[in-house]
Amino acid sequence: MELLIEKIKNEGIVLSSSVLKVDSFLNHQVDPQLMLEIGKEFAERFAHCGITKILTIESSGIAPAVMTGLQLNVPVVFARKRKSLTLVNNLITASVYSFTKEETSEISVSNQYISENDKVLIIDDFLANGRASLGLADIASKAKASIAGIGIVIEKGFQDGGSLLRDKGYRVESLAIIDSLNDGLVSFEQQTTETKVELTR
Amino acid sequence: MELLIEKIKNEGIVLSSSVLKVDSFLNHQVDPQLMLEIGKEFAERFAHCGITKILTIESSGIAPAVMTGLQLNVPVVFARKRKSLTLVNNLITASVYSFTKEETSEISVSNQYISENDKVLIIDDFLANGRASLGLADIASKAKASIAGIGIVIEKGFQDGGSLLRDKGYRVESLAIIDSLNDGLVSFEQQTTETKVELTR
Repeated sequence: MELLIEKIKNEGIVLSSSVLKVDSFLNHQVDPQLMLEIGKEFAERFAHCGITKILTIESSGIAPAVMTGLQLNVPVVFARKRKSLTLVNNLITASVYSFTKEETSEISVSNQYISENDKVLIIDDFLANGRASLGLADIASKAKASIAGIGIVIEKGFQDGGSLLRDKGYRVESLAIIDSLNDGLVSFEQQTTETKVELTR
Repeated sequence: MELLIEKIKNEGIVLSSSVLKVDSFLNHQVDPQLMLEIGKEFAERFAHCGITKILTIESSGIAPAVMTGLQLNVPVVFARKRKSLTLVNNLITASVYSFTKEETSEISVSNQYISENDKVLIIDDFLANGRASLGLADIASKAKASIAGIGIVIEKGFQDGGSLLRDKGYRVESLAIIDSLNDGLVSFEQQTTETKVELTR
């Protein structure tokens, strides 16, 4: 998705060979117009799939997921990382290991909002090791829902999450796939040009 | 906002005389079309205020805030409740006491995304004791930004947050104001009809 790739080139900050910071439009500050275009792109790629529900995870997945739900005219459910005071009963849970935080956390969704009749589109902001997407897929499977695919805003193609999910047979659609963050450079798959990204701001 | 009030009447669950559960369209499952209408309503109420930025807090504030930002064509910043791995430097923080959790937590926003040149609209899903909104206002003030107002999806009119914020001079626009949750009934301000809401589902 060219608009997204341009945004990453212009505003992304390479913190290390594995960490790209996009706090200016996705992970802290959010660009609503870009989110709308992202929603349109996901809706186009997963059109005619009979999607009945979008499943994402708080917090950065919510904006792209809600815009996708708006376009597909289906509800969005965001999995909780923390226990909610009003969300206590009938939870479907999955364990998610975070390589960055080096800890396993539990994510949860109420069984009231996902069922065997649902055809789920999983949406998340980043795909690195794929554990968050796997956790969401695990929750959908426990609910006996079918999974139409996984929509990712930014995939780190140099980490194993994408192949892990695709090897399991999931259709993964990533709007921007990064080949490498080496030497402070963001290089994109199927792109010959590399763009220097400032290391500090 | 009639559409929202109808949604609360139809889907809200009264858990106690102080807790209303709206997990079916706002706090866990999200209704994107309703969020769009909520965004349009906030944008209309705060039109011609020169808003340059929406400030909200993760997670339930994000959907209504992003739809409002879409309508006003301004960026949205969501304050973090947890420390982020890529959000570590130049943080503006505020302490927020939660009466429900009976604990004080720290919320934070990067000083890169809010400045003295900003005119901020604060958006949140619920207004009860007002501590979250006060924390966001505190962050905006620390950034020397001006505050155009506070947009609330559901205000618990029987708790003191609304008067607290209005007494401080903030313009507070709530799309639905609940007078009471007594006896499992949701009653709305400026409404004569009460609606029985099922206590369990």
